[in-house]
Amino acid sequence: MAKRIITISREFGSGGRFIGEEVAKKLGIAYYDKDIIGQIAEKSGFSTEYIKENAELSPKKGLFGYAFAGRDLTGKSVEDMVYEAQRKVILEIAEKESCVIIGRNADFILKDREDVLNVFIHGDMPEKVQRICRLYHVNEGEAAKMMADIDKRRMTNYRFYTEQKWGMAGNYTLSMNSSRLGYEMCEKMIMDCTKAGVAHSCICTSQVL
Amino acid sequence: MAKRIITISREFGSGGRFIGEEVAKKLGIAYYDKDIIGQIAEKSGFSTEYIKENAELSPKKGLFGYAFAGRDLTGKSVEDMVYEAQRKVILEIAEKESCVIIGRNADFILKDREDVLNVFIHGDMPEKVQRICRLYHVNEGEAAKMMADIDKRRMTNYRFYTEQKWGMAGNYTLSMNSSRLGYEMCEKMIMDCTKAGVAHSCICTSQVL
Repeated sequence: MAKRIITISREFGSGGRFIGEEVAKKLGIAYYDKDIIGQIAEKSGFSTEYIKENAELSPKKGLFGYAFAGRDLTGKSVEDMVYEAQRKVILEIAEKESCVIIGRNADFILKDREDVLNVFIHGDMPEKVQRICRLYHVNEGEAAKMMADIDKRRMTNYRFYTEQKWGMAGNYTLSMNSSRLGYEMCEKMIMDCTKAGVAHSCICTSQVL
Repeated sequence: MAKRIITISREFGSGGRFIGEEVAKKLGIAYYDKDIIGQIAEKSGFSTEYIKENAELSPKKGLFGYAFAGRDLTGKSVEDMVYEAQRKVILEIAEKESCVIIGRNADFILKDREDVLNVFIHGDMPEKVQRICRLYHVNEGEAAKMMADIDKRRMTNYRFYTEQKWGMAGNYTLSMNSSRLGYEMCEKMIMDCTKAGVAHSCICTSQVL
């Protein structure tokens, strides 16, 4: 198989991370998720704990959090520096080997490469809530709150750094509802595309109309 | 195969209609696109020409076109009456037989059924422009203008009647970039889902976050 990068963006609770990990195992390629954090920390000089909390999520205050974040003399905020380190790490990984990368705006960061398949995994609210309850040992109300909070922060982070709307089909080559399709079907479809040599999605017109 | 309804929403020039027609042929099920217009005309009392121009597209003035449309004593505009006739026809068709329905907000109209697979087809701007040039014998500038105009009117119509955002992955079970995947791969994936008995997508959380 030619070199292939698969980026997986996902709603919280949709199983996108699990699906990505399975695809990487089945294709025998590298998988990058939390293990990317150490590299970002090293590049940026921030602690792994700080990166874990901030590299993919917006400040809790949302877009204003970015706009009014403390900035140094070059106009860069702490969030910008972390993001820049993350961008460099993702570009280096993609240059190096076939892999699956979970989240972190990798679809946008790698938009100029021709060997990238961009996937978005979403799901139905009741199924996602049940999954979060099982995984995090929380009740339904807490699960719904976690989901709303994390997806909102991912969305804001994505919007701020890419100027695109998170979850628009046009940003991805393939978007799937894992609650309806099932995880195995999602994995199969990603692998079918990868084997067929389908590459990356462009920045599509649908979002500017 | 159990009864299956496949709705296909699509960007103008993405080949969604062609893909839907091929899927219907290959599965040996009914295909509804322009032929639905006669039925809507009959139900609404308007001419087929009027339906053709208005049933799927917003007035050229956009959302204001709906808001300030002339309304009768019940508060209904001409557009509302056409839409209501369209809704009834689509509900009747879905009740009757397995089929592919192109556009016309069928994904939303059929949201309470369990046997519906909702698909969104989009594509890359350069490939869509080339396709429109070939199909409509126009130059690239005219093709880009047609695309922008028609997609904007579809989007406005969808937003007005569904209160959802057209093109958000969460509205569909499966969204595909036909420029990247190729039409045959899109057809294969729709058929794989249909045969596996994958049913409809819910109104997903992603758009309210």
